[in-house]
Amino acid sequence: MRPNRLPQPYLLYLADVDDPRYAKTAQGLRDWVPEQCVGEWAMLGNELRLGLPFLDPAAARSRGAQALVVGVAPVGGQIQAAWIPGLVQALEAGLDVISGMHSPLSGIPELVVTAERCARRLIDIRIPPADLPVASGQRRSGRRLLTVGTDCALGKKYTALSLTRAFRARGIPVDFRATGQTGILIAGSGIPVDAVKADFLAGAAELLSPAAAPEHWDIIEGQGALVHPGYAAVSLGLLQGSQPDVLVLCHAADRTHVSGYGPEFPLPPVAEVIELNLAHARLRRPEVRMAGVSLNTHGLSPDQADRLMDDFERDLGLVCADPLRGAERFERLVSACLTD
Amino acid sequence: MRPNRLPQPYLLYLADVDDPRYAKTAQGLRDWVPEQCVGEWAMLGNELRLGLPFLDPAAARSRGAQALVVGVAPVGGQIQAAWIPGLVQALEAGLDVISGMHSPLSGIPELVVTAERCARRLIDIRIPPADLPVASGQRRSGRRLLTVGTDCALGKKYTALSLTRAFRARGIPVDFRATGQTGILIAGSGIPVDAVKADFLAGAAELLSPAAAPEHWDIIEGQGALVHPGYAAVSLGLLQGSQPDVLVLCHAADRTHVSGYGPEFPLPPVAEVIELNLAHARLRRPEVRMAGVSLNTHGLSPDQADRLMDDFERDLGLVCADPLRGAERFERLVSACLTD
Repeated sequence: MRPNRLPQPYLLYLADVDDPRYAKTAQGLRDWVPEQCVGEWAMLGNELRLGLPFLDPAAARSRGAQALVVGVAPVGGQIQAAWIPGLVQALEAGLDVISGMHSPLSGIPELVVTAERCARRLIDIRIPPADLPVASGQRRSGRRLLTVGTDCALGKKYTALSLTRAFRARGIPVDFRATGQTGILIAGSGIPVDAVKADFLAGAAELLSPAAAPEHWDIIEGQGALVHPGYAAVSLGLLQGSQPDVLVLCHAADRTHVSGYGPEFPLPPVAEVIELNLAHARLRRPEVRMAGVSLNTHGLSPDQADRLMDDFERDLGLVCADPLRGAERFERLVSACLTD
Repeated sequence: MRPNRLPQPYLLYLADVDDPRYAKTAQGLRDWVPEQCVGEWAMLGNELRLGLPFLDPAAARSRGAQALVVGVAPVGGQIQAAWIPGLVQALEAGLDVISGMHSPLSGIPELVVTAERCARRLIDIRIPPADLPVASGQRRSGRRLLTVGTDCALGKKYTALSLTRAFRARGIPVDFRATGQTGILIAGSGIPVDAVKADFLAGAAELLSPAAAPEHWDIIEGQGALVHPGYAAVSLGLLQGSQPDVLVLCHAADRTHVSGYGPEFPLPPVAEVIELNLAHARLRRPEVRMAGVSLNTHGLSPDQADRLMDDFERDLGLVCADPLRGAERFERLVSACLTD
């Protein structure tokens, strides 16, 4: 089953994964919603630590935790047999168990039986809600910002979260709308759009950011890229159903080719990606604007990053900032989002 | 379960549906693959006839039928309780049962039990194959044509079938590749792309038209429209994975608004839809061409239709034909598809 809101706060489970690169879910939760993270827990012998209190399920439960989150994702995205005793222990301690793995918790009989016995829930956040509608296409009140990209995995979630935090700091009513596993855990709700059947994708995006007060903003986590060889459909359904007033393009300075697809797949020019996104977005919202570029400048020196962002600003006529490179530039991007 | 090829030939079942508008699946099969239609059957008191031999399941089986096809689709797309005795009779006569309804045959216990007892299959063609891959984006040999549209339900399947027939008449090796229920029944195989999870949509389209001999053509049934408020994602995934060499745009002369969406949803100009399709298609196949326009001129007089097609040709600089309005113009469209 899948509740409307996830049970929070969490205990983050690292299991036997000691490589921090495979613990991004747990790290994302620690960084973005530390107030929802009671502690972390790992299997005996795993020395990976995230800096939260180290608590077993019973101790976490006594400090208020409502659910254990599987905070790691090894290659293949499967729940490992070795993790099951720990998940059973969590259920028996009174915690629900939440997973974003490809293999559902509900497919593991031992967990199903234990959850039943302990009256706890197994929550697979990769499973979208049932009975999603076809998109109505109707305009709805409230304002919406969608982060789009030139490729996968270059900062669309990070940018959306950073913008949400910055809007909130300015006193603007805002919600982060999550479309992927980590985002959903951070927000406590959302729809994993990549697992939705194609016919209902735009409908799912409409549900995700419902009608709101006129001055309220939804900042929607983008997925994939309109120009991606595999995931373009996800991006388009999300764009259509979100009906954004404002787009922010996310790009990585060192990304020349589609990640994971090799040299025959060069990224198109950024200006072309911007134009394609606007062409689709205008169909639903003629007044849509591209507010700026969020540039991932990882690996560059501060001077190099600044020069590159200046180049982007000059070439595209848009504000360009890296949410990880100081507030001044980023606040200019925030202002560009808010200025009609 | 879902076989790679559907069992043919068919007995077409009209059940209690006496309005020919809801018998389009059966009519499509009669029109496009009469050699695969042994006969038709209906419930007692239903006088709708399609002109095929009227046979009960046992008689159809003795004439070689392998499966009964539910050839009607009432509003809502559900199997009606009243149809079940007829479906049971078909299974008992030795026929498999094939359905493209929303509600799966496998959800009706009486049919499941009977199919098991008679060692027959219940085949739900709306259920896509399991384990579809993410698209590789790799180019593959052979040539591909995709029909695209300005909206749903204006002739993309009909155009693809007409082009397939015309290519074949010219001695060109060609396969029709089906993406919707009726098309799949006609072709005897295919993938219902609208039911595929978004992440795997382009991958499904790659599987649908696999690598082939360099001179071979796949003519792929388009779905939805890139500019459609609900179904744009389906269209984009299919376009990306198909990697077409040639596009044919399908449009209806009397269509001014998105079908079923009301006056706030005007169709964009045809030239804009063409440009958007080419922009996406070029990402995977830079040499892609829009060969022409297939215009549904239903309701116009022959003179009006001719004048309108002349106008389209002049305005767009592309051949324009209606597959239902005489061979001469349509053969020009066929030639335009084949001429680099």
